[in-house]
Amino acid sequence: MRELNQRAVLDLLRRVGMATRPQVAKDTGLSKPTVGQALLDLEQHGLVRPVGRTTTGPGRSAVVYEANPSAGHVLGVDIGRERIRVAVADLAGAVVARVDERNRCRSASSLVRTVRDLAELTVRDAGLELSDVVSKVVGSPGVPDPRSRGLHHAPNLPGWGRAGLLDELEAVLGPGLVVENDANLAAVGEHTYGVARGADVFVCVTVGTGIGMGIVVDGQLFRGAHGAAGEIGYLPYGEPGAEQAPPSRGLLETAAAANSVVEMAAARGLHQVRSAREVFGLAREGDERALAAVAEEATRLAFVVASVAAVIDPSMVVLGGGVGSNTDLLHEPLELALRRTTPLVPSVVAGELGDGAVLSGAIAIGLRSAHELVFSQRGNAHESITL
Amino acid sequence: MRELNQRAVLDLLRRVGMATRPQVAKDTGLSKPTVGQALLDLEQHGLVRPVGRTTTGPGRSAVVYEANPSAGHVLGVDIGRERIRVAVADLAGAVVARVDERNRCRSASSLVRTVRDLAELTVRDAGLELSDVVSKVVGSPGVPDPRSRGLHHAPNLPGWGRAGLLDELEAVLGPGLVVENDANLAAVGEHTYGVARGADVFVCVTVGTGIGMGIVVDGQLFRGAHGAAGEIGYLPYGEPGAEQAPPSRGLLETAAAANSVVEMAAARGLHQVRSAREVFGLAREGDERALAAVAEEATRLAFVVASVAAVIDPSMVVLGGGVGSNTDLLHEPLELALRRTTPLVPSVVAGELGDGAVLSGAIAIGLRSAHELVFSQRGNAHESITL
Repeated sequence: MRELNQRAVLDLLRRVGMATRPQVAKDTGLSKPTVGQALLDLEQHGLVRPVGRTTTGPGRSAVVYEANPSAGHVLGVDIGRERIRVAVADLAGAVVARVDERNRCRSASSLVRTVRDLAELTVRDAGLELSDVVSKVVGSPGVPDPRSRGLHHAPNLPGWGRAGLLDELEAVLGPGLVVENDANLAAVGEHTYGVARGADVFVCVTVGTGIGMGIVVDGQLFRGAHGAAGEIGYLPYGEPGAEQAPPSRGLLETAAAANSVVEMAAARGLHQVRSAREVFGLAREGDERALAAVAEEATRLAFVVASVAAVIDPSMVVLGGGVGSNTDLLHEPLELALRRTTPLVPSVVAGELGDGAVLSGAIAIGLRSAHELVFSQRGNAHESITL
Repeated sequence: MRELNQRAVLDLLRRVGMATRPQVAKDTGLSKPTVGQALLDLEQHGLVRPVGRTTTGPGRSAVVYEANPSAGHVLGVDIGRERIRVAVADLAGAVVARVDERNRCRSASSLVRTVRDLAELTVRDAGLELSDVVSKVVGSPGVPDPRSRGLHHAPNLPGWGRAGLLDELEAVLGPGLVVENDANLAAVGEHTYGVARGADVFVCVTVGTGIGMGIVVDGQLFRGAHGAAGEIGYLPYGEPGAEQAPPSRGLLETAAAANSVVEMAAARGLHQVRSAREVFGLAREGDERALAAVAEEATRLAFVVASVAAVIDPSMVVLGGGVGSNTDLLHEPLELALRRTTPLVPSVVAGELGDGAVLSGAIAIGLRSAHELVFSQRGNAHESITL
């Protein structure tokens, strides 16, 4: 009973933010002495803390409590071809430390080491140790395979497909690690904190160095039969080559990821540009060749949106990633191409979380288990719990 | 209590098939007198019937009961461009009457009248009246819209898109009518009675006069945000035309439905063929031009399978319909094209139910509600219930 009461009080405080003992008693239906005991227990475990006293209102001044956001922390990691991002957040989801570094790794082993170093750096910035972190969630390109403990379909990260890679990551970050497809995390991020809050059937399309998509149905990730749902880099865009095997990057990804934007610009005479970012920059300055390349990219993304609409009919398509987030330039030609292609035209919108979408999703997923874990582990107090 | 006991006894008999009073008492945990009373009540309402007596085993000979399959009937209708099929099934799912006619209608009104006539004919064949039928399920191309009470995206049936059509169908078939996309019903049929029994994430692709797809996830139809999930006739195959609007039939449907098979054969010199069926027939006889047309059709279907795999990663793709069911000829070139296109290759198999898949799905959906309805309406006995 005592545990159930503590749980009821803690859940209420997490839901409402702050409350006094009489308010908690009223909202939970528990007696005031029971609530008092539960608050005492929870405060001793560091899960609840007093934040002040009421100064107005009827009756005597009362202590105001809140769920202690520092009672636990979660770690989120976004492993991308270009950058590695790490964040530590408290139980309220507030980011307390963040690191964003270029990914210069040329092998899986060096990438695993770099992830470890950046995670330790970020955790120390937050005044913690890795072992203090309650939940750890890593986003990566590819499809995690629980049998081989590796990641399939991550051609843009050298060596990243090798068996046992998930164990290598767990060895450096610690037990209880969750590794999730990065596009899936971006979708969870936009659904939890971003533009897709409350959407019932929506997809988040990430176009950058690679191309991926996360699908959220009624608040849950839809993964398909083998976890490969949303691997739209493999959409059959254009003609397959004469070879008997498909390109490892996928036909659509080869045609529409960041490097293609550079190639499309080069084909129009812009031989000096090195990155998709530069192409979008020139387009914003009015460069006709860059604008033509952007329009061509938009028609390829219209192919993606039309394909997805014909298969799963989402209410909303969120565009993100280094290429996809340039909706100021992409939106109009994309809509035009889409309306010439299909009568099934979902709403296409920019993500709200920018390049933080994957990290936000990692933290959202981490928080789902962290709340549970800090309560069940409240006996074995860590430093971080008894702050 | 009396109703609950009847319900428990009836559910048990439906699950196990046949049982004696002592067996029912043992399996439900009810006393033998309670079971006896429930069986008496159910028999009076026509929901349960004695089918014989035990002749072996311990103790006295006992009456064997079963749920009365004739206690109610369901009507399924499959409205296709080429044919209209109607079936009546009893509560055990056994088809007791069936009609299959060419669709010669050139307007929505004449089609509604024809559906009414064929439904009445089939019901009479079963010795019933339309009002005796407990559940009625109609499969049609298109996406039912609960607001306009019409069907969207059914370009192959003239006038079928008009507002209020669902009400017109209900006016001739009676209240409680369910209208469902035909490809969705085919998927339910193959999942309930066919090749996809037990599949967790699977799709049923129907290729005939039109092209559609039903998606079943964990036993439930996945419909998307507006009911248009699986409308793969709108997949962006090839280049959209110069017009500002897409073809009403959809790019993929225009390129891969039955008429395209005829066109592909004509382009190879087979000018005399009139139907896709003839093309497949000639291909089976070894005609090189027909085989080439079939191979081209297979690559277009590989485009469909690759698109669907990249978006939702099904474990199985069931092929059906007048064109799709020719898997003996389509399978090899389809697999070859698929493996050149994508590493995500689901199992592609023929449906088991042939051109009865839509009707089977209609009956399966009808039975879900019929069991409930015959029990709740057991007071107001119809002719058909008190057989």
